[in-house]
Amino acid sequence: MSADDGLTLDRVHAAAKRLDGVVHRTPLLTSATLDDECGGNVLLKAEMFQRSGSFKFRGAYNRLSQLSEAERGQGVVAFSSGNHGAAVALAAHLLGVKAVIVVPADGPALKLAAIEGYGAELRTYDPQRESREVVAGEIAAERSMTVIRPFDDYEIMAGQGTAGLELAEQATETGGGGPVDLVLVPVGGGGLAAGVSTAIKGLLPHAAIIGVEPEIAGDTSLSFRAGHRVSIDEPATIADGLRARQPGELTFPINARLLDDVVTVPEDAIAAAMRFCFARLKIVVEPSGAVPLAALLHGVVRAAPRTAVVLSGGNVDPAGFARLTSQK
Amino acid sequence: MSADDGLTLDRVHAAAKRLDGVVHRTPLLTSATLDDECGGNVLLKAEMFQRSGSFKFRGAYNRLSQLSEAERGQGVVAFSSGNHGAAVALAAHLLGVKAVIVVPADGPALKLAAIEGYGAELRTYDPQRESREVVAGEIAAERSMTVIRPFDDYEIMAGQGTAGLELAEQATETGGGGPVDLVLVPVGGGGLAAGVSTAIKGLLPHAAIIGVEPEIAGDTSLSFRAGHRVSIDEPATIADGLRARQPGELTFPINARLLDDVVTVPEDAIAAAMRFCFARLKIVVEPSGAVPLAALLHGVVRAAPRTAVVLSGGNVDPAGFARLTSQK
Repeated sequence: MSADDGLTLDRVHAAAKRLDGVVHRTPLLTSATLDDECGGNVLLKAEMFQRSGSFKFRGAYNRLSQLSEAERGQGVVAFSSGNHGAAVALAAHLLGVKAVIVVPADGPALKLAAIEGYGAELRTYDPQRESREVVAGEIAAERSMTVIRPFDDYEIMAGQGTAGLELAEQATETGGGGPVDLVLVPVGGGGLAAGVSTAIKGLLPHAAIIGVEPEIAGDTSLSFRAGHRVSIDEPATIADGLRARQPGELTFPINARLLDDVVTVPEDAIAAAMRFCFARLKIVVEPSGAVPLAALLHGVVRAAPRTAVVLSGGNVDPAGFARLTSQK
Repeated sequence: MSADDGLTLDRVHAAAKRLDGVVHRTPLLTSATLDDECGGNVLLKAEMFQRSGSFKFRGAYNRLSQLSEAERGQGVVAFSSGNHGAAVALAAHLLGVKAVIVVPADGPALKLAAIEGYGAELRTYDPQRESREVVAGEIAAERSMTVIRPFDDYEIMAGQGTAGLELAEQATETGGGGPVDLVLVPVGGGGLAAGVSTAIKGLLPHAAIIGVEPEIAGDTSLSFRAGHRVSIDEPATIADGLRARQPGELTFPINARLLDDVVTVPEDAIAAAMRFCFARLKIVVEPSGAVPLAALLHGVVRAAPRTAVVLSGGNVDPAGFARLTSQK
């Protein structure tokens, strides 16, 4: 059995059944302005409209809904400065499970407030002195809680893959316009990319899939070219959801096989894509969510006749949003 | 013939035919968070996703597409600091008609840039010393151009009404959830309210329709109670699209007959509704567009089992948006 036998189209379909009626079937937005700008039809999978404000809810709910009775009774622990934490907190709340989220003391205020708003217990750590994995592991051991990993877990990946399933269905249903030729997806730890590419390659085998990272957080791009996992220093990208130092152990083999390429975009192109979303499309996209659109608008990737872009989330502080969208 | 025989459901349907394939059929968004907050199903007609960034494009294109050959050759003139100007500029560009837009010298930068971006000629005036109607009238006379009024025109109203047609169709189509009980619409000059209420009362006769204005721009509310048109001083509301000093001569009789009520909201409730749209719904709504949602969130209007809200536009400068969404 190869390392990625664990993620199949069937597993993504099974996740979709569990999520039916719980997740939002987010719209596939189009814009004449964007089509003109890119020179092709562009379809935007609007995961900033997902519950908890990002695609992460899909994986978190899929994973938590399969806990045993005993595991539910003990609760879960997750480490995340942002969207994974909020997603686990909301999924736990909906399922009546206790959740502890380990967050950096200097994490984004809006994201930390959202986690608390969903009723989870916040446990802060000092990112200069402590490892969040170690802190989470200690809590899990002390309180017999289950650790919910952000991406290196097949049920998390299968849940994220349902965004790809929906995208393929929406593009090909009546009025949807037909199959897409190219899908762009952001890459952090690689869970979304692995799930979406499993769904897309299963349903639309002729579509190319390209992963996009910030230039200064190009661990997957480097690894993709090297053929094995490469680590980088903690990257200071504005895309706070894509600061993984290396691809996941389980996600990387899947992405190395299914992605057609992994490309990178500079920081100013990410901010410009956020501004475009604000001023022209009237949608709020966080830096990590704007990364794949930046690849199109910045000319790193050329639009296909029909290109789908996963806008992965919209959780951004008003002050940070204002700063990034006011730049010229 | 009474004063409002000029606007009928048939006329709105005819406008919809002209606009088919030209306007965006904007989505009817829903949000579990919003439903919880309001205590009922809330459907948001997302006109900030409309071409030119507001519903105004519907009326402008409907009007301009019916110009005679001779009128097209001479061009059009419109006075507007904002969305009507951008809408006329875009419609004129698409139809190959020359457009002059009369704008206040201190108008919102983003809106003025959009007007120029669509290729229209900008003519600034000093709002302290000149009347925009007079300036526009002079240009029309000198250059034999047709004045495109912002609301007091049945073809403008019929075009705006197509937002109501779509809303009724989308709510009642498969998966739409069924008829709505209540529709909330912003009121400035009254063109959108007249068009939408004509469509809604024609298609969903049991639905109530409530117009919403800023408290400090309550000319239609005062007029509605008085039974005749009342003027107010130039209002300094943040809702720059709703600064009309009195209801329209043609729009008021229609709104007086079809609206079930006209209510007002304070300025801070408008800013709070914009913040809610930003932080929770991840959409960019301008102050005027957030006014009807403010009525729900601020408790001025109680949600019905199914309430539709017209979010009329999303054209707001980054700096203004930041200021309004960062307030506590």
